Amino acid sequence: MKNDLPQPPYYAVIFGSQLSGIEPDKYAQMANHMEALAQQQPGYLGIESAKNEVGFGITISYWKDLESIKAWREQAEHLEAQRLGKECWYASYELKVARVEGIKAFGE
Amino acid sequence: MKNDLPQPPYYAVIFGSQLSGIEPDKYAQMANHMEALAQQQPGYLGIESAKNEVGFGITISYWKDLESIKAWREQAEHLEAQRLGKECWYASYELKVARVEGIKAFGE
Repeated sequence: MKNDLPQPPYYAVIFGSQLSGIEPDKYAQMANHMEALAQQQPGYLGIESAKNEVGFGITISYWKDLESIKAWREQAEHLEAQRLGKECWYASYELKVARVEGIKAFGE
Repeated sequence: MKNDLPQPPYYAVIFGSQLSGIEPDKYAQMANHMEALAQQQPGYLGIESAKNEVGFGITISYWKDLESIKAWREQAEHLEAQRLGKECWYASYELKVARVEGIKAFGE
């Protein structure tokens, strides 16, 4: 909500995931680290995230263009996090790449 | 996650919101009703939602095309829900319309 995104168009990576419940502390630590790392990537615009009490979460990261998304996907530490995610932390996930075309805000 | 979405392209309405905390029961009832109503709209493809413990939530609904989104936005009961949302239930929200271009899944 507080990302100060530019005017569209730009890109969103929509990541919906169900945690396995294995190693929740390690997962949380890695998730925080990945968020900090993403913020340093070229083309990073912002992130928003919500997770409910049964471990289903949606994280959306926003990016300048598809090249920025590709570079982040292939970043070395992120590749290792993706591997651990599939091996341990996620029961399932679904990742969508979408082009943001319009935005409308209400409230502060 | 279990929406059985078609192959892209299609559209996503990304709704990130911070609840005010006013009338939580009425809000929850209306949110359920709106979800049921959306499912009956032409062009509706699916929905996913997560809300954290401080009332920040992300709901993403998926639609065949921009016309379907426009029709849903202008549906009479939904207009009334939007009005009440701004008047009472939301402290703030941000709504983005995005064109889903790619999808990748892991797990069941």
